[in-house]
Order: sequence, then C-alpha cells, then structure tokens
Amino acid sequence: MVATPFFPEHEQVNTGDPRVVEIRLEVEEKEIEIAPGVFMWAFTFNGSVPGPIIVVHEGDYVEMTLVNPSSNELLHNIDFHASAGALGGGSLTQVGPGQEVVLRFRATKAGAFIYHCAPGGTMVPWHVVHGMNGAIMVLPREGLRDPAGNPISYDRAYYVGEQDYYLPRGENGDLSAMTVHPRRWPTASRIRHLIGGHGDYVWERGGFSSPPAVDLETWVIAAGSAGASIHTIRQPRTYAYLSHNLIEAFVFDAKAIWSPRENGTTT
Amino acid sequence: MVATPFFPEHEQVNTGDPRVVEIRLEVEEKEIEIAPGVFMWAFTFNGSVPGPIIVVHEGDYVEMTLVNPSSNELLHNIDFHASAGALGGGSLTQVGPGQEVVLRFRATKAGAFIYHCAPGGTMVPWHVVHGMNGAIMVLPREGLRDPAGNPISYDRAYYVGEQDYYLPRGENGDLSAMTVHPRRWPTASRIRHLIGGHGDYVWERGGFSSPPAVDLETWVIAAGSAGASIHTIRQPRTYAYLSHNLIEAFVFDAKAIWSPRENGTTT
Amino acid sequence: MVATPFFPEHEQVNTGDPRVVEIRLEVEEKEIEIAPGVFMWAFTFNGSVPGPIIVVHEGDYVEMTLVNPSSNELLHNIDFHASAGALGGGSLTQVGPGQEVVLRFRATKAGAFIYHCAPGGTMVPWHVVHGMNGAIMVLPREGLRDPAGNPISYDRAYYVGEQDYYLPRGENGDLSAMTVHPRRWPTASRIRHLIGGHGDYVWERGGFSSPPAVDLETWVIAAGSAGASIHTIRQPRTYAYLSHNLIEAFVFDAKAIWSPRENGTTT
Repeated sequence: MVATPFFPEHEQVNTGDPRVVEIRLEVEEKEIEIAPGVFMWAFTFNGSVPGPIIVVHEGDYVEMTLVNPSSNELLHNIDFHASAGALGGGSLTQVGPGQEVVLRFRATKAGAFIYHCAPGGTMVPWHVVHGMNGAIMVLPREGLRDPAGNPISYDRAYYVGEQDYYLPRGENGDLSAMTVHPRRWPTASRIRHLIGGHGDYVWERGGFSSPPAVDLETWVIAAGSAGASIHTIRQPRTYAYLSHNLIEAFVFDAKAIWSPRENGTTT
Repeated sequence: MVATPFFPEHEQVNTGDPRVVEIRLEVEEKEIEIAPGVFMWAFTFNGSVPGPIIVVHEGDYVEMTLVNPSSNELLHNIDFHASAGALGGGSLTQVGPGQEVVLRFRATKAGAFIYHCAPGGTMVPWHVVHGMNGAIMVLPREGLRDPAGNPISYDRAYYVGEQDYYLPRGENGDLSAMTVHPRRWPTASRIRHLIGGHGDYVWERGGFSSPPAVDLETWVIAAGSAGASIHTIRQPRTYAYLSHNLIEAFVFDAKAIWSPRENGTTT
Repeated sequence: MVATPFFPEHEQVNTGDPRVVEIRLEVEEKEIEIAPGVFMWAFTFNGSVPGPIIVVHEGDYVEMTLVNPSSNELLHNIDFHASAGALGGGSLTQVGPGQEVVLRFRATKAGAFIYHCAPGGTMVPWHVVHGMNGAIMVLPREGLRDPAGNPISYDRAYYVGEQDYYLPRGENGDLSAMTVHPRRWPTASRIRHLIGGHGDYVWERGGFSSPPAVDLETWVIAAGSAGASIHTIRQPRTYAYLSHNLIEAFVFDAKAIWSPRENGTTT
C-alpha cells in the first residue's frame, strides 16, 4: 500500500478466481503537521490521514492484520463498511497496545466504502476525527460500466478524503503554531465540485452495481461515506476539487489542488 | 394501526381494485419520557413520536379522520406529502380542540412519504419538532421491483424516524431529570448507515417508481422526508441503524439498535 | 434575458445546427431591498439576485460579454459550471471597474448548471453571498426525456434560487430597517419540497443525460449547484416551493409562493 492520495498498482478488470488480498494496517498515535507550523496529535492508519486506499475485486477476500504497537496508549479496532456482520468487523478486531489481530472478510459488494476505527460510544467519533478513517474500492470483476453497460476505465486514480479538524484559533482567527487536539466531530455531507471540470461518471453513494450519474457539475458525498467519480481532463491546467460549500473550501481549506501536465503526469 | 417501529399487517402485492383505507389519527398533547427520567411536553399522532406508519397501495383512497380532543389546547392539521393539492390537505383539515375532520385523498404516487402537522408560519416547525410527524408507505400494486424489474419482497418491516429534540442541558452537559419544551428545529439531512450491513436496495428519496440503488454502505435521507431500504441480515447479531454523522449518533443518540435472532424474531 | 424567476422565450427541442448564443452580463454593485424596509449592499449580475437564467442547447456556443462598469469598486469574474477548463472561465474573465471581457465556450454537457463570481480565495464565497450567482440550462437538442426515453415537455418554466443572506438582527430578533452587509456564507444543501405537489420528474443533480427520478415528495439540491424538476399542477391553488428544513422555510423565509390560475397564468 502507498500513502494517499496515490493508489496501489492494480488491474481494473480481473476475471480470474477470487484472491486473498493481504493488508497490514498499523495504528500510529503521533503528532502530525496539518498546516505550516500547526501540529495535531493524531491517530492514523499507517501514518497518514486519511489512511491508505485498498483496492480489491468483488468476491476477493481481504485478510487484514491490524497492529496496535505497544508504544500506543489506546484501544483501537476497525469497522469495514465493505463487510457484513459483526459490526463490520468492529466487534472482532479490538486490540490494545502491544496486540494485533487478523480479520478475513469477503468483499461481496462492488463499490467504494469507508473503513474507520469504532471502539464504541463517543470514542467512535473521537477516533475518527483524530484521523482514523480510510477507504476500500471493490471493483466489479468485469470492471466499471457506463449507464448503457459499456466498459469504462481510467488512466490514473487518486484518493481524496475530506477530514474535519476542529481546532482552537487565536484571537485573530488564525491557526497559530501550536499542538492541538480535535475537539468536535463531523457535521454535514460534503458537496464536491471540480472547478473547471465535470463528473463524467459519478457514483455518488459509491455503489458500482448501480449505473453512474453522468455529466455532473457538483455532487454530494454523504458524511462518513465514500463515492467515486471519473473526470476527463481536457486542458493541462490547474484544477481544484473542493467543497462547493464555499466557506468550507476557502475559509476552512476543504479543497485539493492538482495540475495535470500535458505529458499525462500530475503535480 | 400499531405504534412505531412496527408495521400494520399488510399485503405487499395487491392487484385487486383500489380500496378505501380508513385511518384514525388522534392528536394527543401530553408529556412523554424521551430518555430515562427526562420528560418533554409533546404533540403526538396517536401517542407516539413519530406517529404510526400507514400502508396502502398505489391508487387506494386514504380516508383519514383527524381528531383533536377537547382536552388539547392548540389548533392542529395534517399535510400528507402523498397527496396533491390543498397544501397536502393542510388547508382542509385545521381543527381546534373538540373538533374532528375527515379527509379523503387518493394515493396516486408509489413511495414513502412524510405526513406532519402544518398549521401555518412558525407553527409548522414548532409542531413538527414537538413530535407531529409520521409516514405513509404507498406500495406499487404489483409490489416492489429491483433495478431489472424483478419482484422483491421483505420478511418484516420497521419504521424508524429520526426526531430532533432541542433540549436544555445541565452545566455538565447531561440531560438532567426535568420537563422540557423543545426550543429549536431540524437543521440538516440525515445520513443513514447500518453498522455491519448494507442497503441491498435503497430508495433514497422514497419514490418506488424509480429503480432502487443497490449495495450501499450509507445514504442520505432528506430532512423532513422519508426513504426506504431493504437489508438482508446474514448473521444473528446486534446491528445499529444510525446517523453516520457520528456525533449525532453517539453524542445525540441518533441511532436505533436491533438484534435479529436466529429464529427470525427480533428484540 | 429577463429577470428571475422568468425564463427567456426558448425552444425545448432544437435539432438544427449549433448556434452561437450571445449573452451580456453586467455587474451592478448596488443597494437592494431584500425584505420590506431592509436594504443590503449587493453585487449582482444584471441587477437581480440570483442573476438571469440562460437557456441554450447542448453543443451551442455561449458567447458572454462580462461588463464591469467604472462605477463599481471591485474586481469580478465568472465561473461557468457548464464549461470545462480554465477554472470554468474564471481564469480568463477577471475584469476591474471600467473593463469588459468576452468569453466563448461550448456547452458540451446537458443539464442545469450554476454560474458565479469566483475572484479567488475568500473573495469567492464573499462575492457569491453578496448575490453573484445564477444558472444556465443546457437542454438536450432533442429535448427532455422520461426514464423510458419518451419525450417530455413543460408549459412554462421558472427559475428559483435560494440565497443565504447572513444579516444582523435587532434585539427582538427582527430585521429592522437598515442597510446591511452579509457576514457569512452558505452552509448546507437545500432540501426542496413543493407543498401540495410532487416532483413528477426530478433531475436532482441537474444532469439531463441521466434519467430523472419520478414522483418525489422532497429532494436535495447540493449547495452551490442547480437541479431541475417538472411539476404537474392539478388544482388552481396556492403552492409553496420551500426548504423542507422547516426552520429555514418559516423562520428564515426560504420559500417561494406561487398561485397557478385556472386559465394557466400565474401570480
């Protein structure tokens, strides 16, 4: 696995037998820098917020090892929205510092799904807002399809997660240089818009077994969930993928900027 | 009719002639207990919040008698989102204490629809947040269909409504034992997630004449509206159907827990 | 072009060659009256909030002249969500007072799309909440279609935009007679409901190339985006098209009232 926003190398079509895909997720409780000079005590999967994207095909088995190193202080677990039963695996994976656990589940549904720590009660939002969330993309074995059933594919893929940090601010409204703990929790759905582009194909709720919507300007990703979209970039310029709740985008920085180059690479 | 979360007995397919379905809704202004030791002065349909679920088939006539007993203090009425014209019936059903009224409308659209008190102006949100809302499910005469048009059915049905109560809290943040009146109104769409399960079929906006989305982890029910979903429970364990805005779920208790048993019954 | 809520005269089906549609948008910084006796300093396209609706067909070219008169004080530009590249035109259209610019783009996607001023950084939400937003409807050349692919049409069309104004209030909660500047920005998706009617056909995300949902009571327009819906009015009475977040509708006035007459005209 690789750190976000990048994807591991993967095939889009995989018509062979189901595989067992081994994943190792290590919980790291550590300080991260979320803006220049602004540090936060975070809980992470493999060191990044959000955690790494996992890619499998429908019918594959995910065999995840969840490691909670003895240097940590808290109990953690994992709830895979891609799995069924046992609270998404949450009731089978609770591990204290110094413990690890192996969970195997079958990815029976095609789509984009969240995973997150869910150790119970108010600790659920508390751990999530400290950074413990990521996503898994379960591709149909035959690959993605447009509304008419024709195969579609992508040249490259990125994983962008919107994370709410609730941070104290100085008197002038600035985030000063300090170490902070998040204090509150996510509150709303995310409105996504690609400035200067369209969602040529959008799976707003993440389910690849329903036909994608086409040609959208803006769409809504439900809070605490994952969706997927395909964009055709027609001009090598700067694009912003942002919350079209514009205050979130421009005051609270809920935006991702990328610059596709003419040669197909991206900065 | 039976109290929520239960459904009245009903046929899923009804290819006979349209029926006249008689419904009696009595407004009860009374104190209810919404958490252990916490009482609120509520306005209810038939004593529960939300009010009872009504089930008819497309083309049936709903003949509702709305009773406002003389023991009440306020004007009430009812706006059926399943009906057309006359403000959903609101302009024909306003009754004072000691009055009753009969409204007949035809359920011309298949889907899940809200009903609620709507006596005008700021009294609309005021009565709704005091508890005066419920839902009607208008089934297609031929029953529900998957996206390919094949018939689908369910073994049992439950009605879960999310209700915002805006309650004063003590200095320590707890709801202490007291009688309270709601003070504010609903503010956002509801993000639904079934922990450990999937929405095998989801009518996010409630309309049964559009194909359901399939295999979702999470979906969005619009504020003040109704949707429907079918879940296949594969393991007799505890499930939580909750807001996946996790602060709403775990701090403000926007969750419903149920435990399907191996023998098919539910606690 | 005509002022909202009215549409310019247009054909719904246009199977001829693509046209060049010339549009002139003039930015007016001026005081407007948003409630009786309540005035606000606004930034407008052609004097109204929202700006005028533009109607073209898929494949047409929009040739817009954006005029920033010398009587204005600020830089403005325009981001068309209907266009691709160059930040929706935003990076090509920045004009200071006394300047004008011509932008031509091709409407390659069918749907309802927002346009808005986006001069960069926190000025983006600042200009939008002062009033600088509108919409363009790009009709399919063959006209609109129901989910089965059959043509559908409308008798008349209106454009209703919900605009958040964040206004200071007096001690008693009233908006007193005063001139105000907006202070904050939009925060959530809009839940739409037509009291006493249904969305017979709803393009919730605006894309006309996906089949519309049918027979909805309520739907969600993403913040900062446009959708479209067709309603069949069966009774000449008063209807309210409003936010079904009822506090927004009845306390913050997020509603539009109209009264279709028997003769087909509207007040």
